Amino acid sequence: MLPIAVDAMGGDNAPHAIVAGARRAHEENGIPVVLVGRPDEIGDTGDVPVIEASEVIAMDADPSTSVRTMKDSSLVRAAEAVRDGHASAMVSAGNTGATMASALLRTGRIKGVSRPAIATPIPGPSGTPTVLLDAGANAECKAEWMVQFAQMGAIFARARFGVATPRIGLLSIGEEAGKGSPFVKESWKLLDDIDWSAIGADFIGNVEGRDLMGQDVDVAVTDGFTGNVALKTLEGCARNIVGALLEAFETNDETKAAAEQLYPALLPLYKRFDADSYGGAMLLGTKGPCIISHGSSGEDAMVNAISVASEMVELDVVGQIHSAING
Amino acid sequence: MLPIAVDAMGGDNAPHAIVAGARRAHEENGIPVVLVGRPDEIGDTGDVPVIEASEVIAMDADPSTSVRTMKDSSLVRAAEAVRDGHASAMVSAGNTGATMASALLRTGRIKGVSRPAIATPIPGPSGTPTVLLDAGANAECKAEWMVQFAQMGAIFARARFGVATPRIGLLSIGEEAGKGSPFVKESWKLLDDIDWSAIGADFIGNVEGRDLMGQDVDVAVTDGFTGNVALKTLEGCARNIVGALLEAFETNDETKAAAEQLYPALLPLYKRFDADSYGGAMLLGTKGPCIISHGSSGEDAMVNAISVASEMVELDVVGQIHSAING
Repeated sequence: MLPIAVDAMGGDNAPHAIVAGARRAHEENGIPVVLVGRPDEIGDTGDVPVIEASEVIAMDADPSTSVRTMKDSSLVRAAEAVRDGHASAMVSAGNTGATMASALLRTGRIKGVSRPAIATPIPGPSGTPTVLLDAGANAECKAEWMVQFAQMGAIFARARFGVATPRIGLLSIGEEAGKGSPFVKESWKLLDDIDWSAIGADFIGNVEGRDLMGQDVDVAVTDGFTGNVALKTLEGCARNIVGALLEAFETNDETKAAAEQLYPALLPLYKRFDADSYGGAMLLGTKGPCIISHGSSGEDAMVNAISVASEMVELDVVGQIHSAING
Repeated sequence: MLPIAVDAMGGDNAPHAIVAGARRAHEENGIPVVLVGRPDEIGDTGDVPVIEASEVIAMDADPSTSVRTMKDSSLVRAAEAVRDGHASAMVSAGNTGATMASALLRTGRIKGVSRPAIATPIPGPSGTPTVLLDAGANAECKAEWMVQFAQMGAIFARARFGVATPRIGLLSIGEEAGKGSPFVKESWKLLDDIDWSAIGADFIGNVEGRDLMGQDVDVAVTDGFTGNVALKTLEGCARNIVGALLEAFETNDETKAAAEQLYPALLPLYKRFDADSYGGAMLLGTKGPCIISHGSSGEDAMVNAISVASEMVELDVVGQIHSAING
């Protein structure tokens, strides 16, 4: 397998944690990796080679402008490595919009795909995460795109989480077919009209926000605006509840001691809910596989992200999407 | 004050918990109350009078059809009591859509209000809840309505939670002014163009899903589709995390004992996050004040909902909205 191109300069903990994660993915898991960025800042990479890039796209930079003008940035160089056959996939914890734009502009869309979408695994208390897409690539969507998002999401859910027959739901505000905005009603009709058994999936109709962390839907499709609001709402809710809990644990010596007794039972729970355990989101629909990690990714998150990238390459998710879209 | 009309037949725990809550609101808090529904099912109401209504609109019934055809339903009769000057406000834990439709069709819109909106308090780990609106009344909205939603939300946040100068945010997917869907961009321009100091509020620009439970925004305005998705996403997230925690507490005898030690510290937390503590959402923009309680409301939730209704009547929220909208 060609190496996974890792943007060494992107993310809150770059380059140190990124480089450390990349080294571990290579040294411990035997995954071929190439780091992209400024060699002097990257430091010691062990056996991991480096593709030089002198520029860094800031976390808050305008995505399309920066990708267009910063041709020697680590993100653009990582995408070019995939395009030119030097890498099999790219991974970045940097500017999400710029990661998406560089993958899209440098490697292009898969033939027949109208728009790429960000597929984000939503961890639940037990079992398999729900794949939410579009989680923010397209602020405004056409109903037809929902069909492709559902196809791509089903392929991803099967490859990534081993769901044999993914259940596809349309995110709405009421479970009945007639509920929702005009956009959702139109999308429902198009989704309901497809023979999903042909691609080994199942359309179960509308689902609601409360189902995202549950066990009743494997792929939730929506426009990128609603998807991003839902995703950030989940993040905020989880962070606030966990923060309040940790504060309550610190109330007094008694609660501190009790909390310590509980940690062994809480730790696996924390891991199951922690986004870092899932290695980030995947941009679906571009020719070059692209993993978008959370900006706060640490070393462990990067190891997971690189593992996911290599798995998605090995399972040829891009080829599968190509076949599904082009019949 | 005219009594608060309480729909005795609406909600998962009707009529028993509703009647018990209504009695307590009257007997303990001295709030005048009138129950609406089937006298034989309502049972003993103590000093609380009953307005007879023979029909019950089911939780999953189609709102507009049922309100149009079930003229002797508890919801329609409650709304008529407000319209006809027999009650000052209505409270229901029943079918949300039908509650809204009966309030809207029987009492009408406040002059100048384009569309009523559901304002839902989002509890956070500390301090004042954020008022989210529209939480589901209008699946599709016009940008102009966001200005009225913001005005009504600011009045509600001040009356309900004592926020002196409510900070109004527009729910989007990025904090910068240019971020979001075309609808959000248009709404942003209209909201930014208003002199908010005239009504004692402040427009702080875009906010994100993760801010809903935080302390940085008092009123978050959005269309009813996005608002309802965000609200149900929050509910699902909180329920899943709390459920997983309770399960972890039951792991073994040691964790059970430790959890017991923690309950005194966790209980106030639970209360602060519990939607029941806030007495439900309020429909803003109708001539008759209308509190929409959660379908799962128990006795305590009803006591709170009735208290909120009487507070909103005393503070003349309807009159305040009328003045703000009609300048």
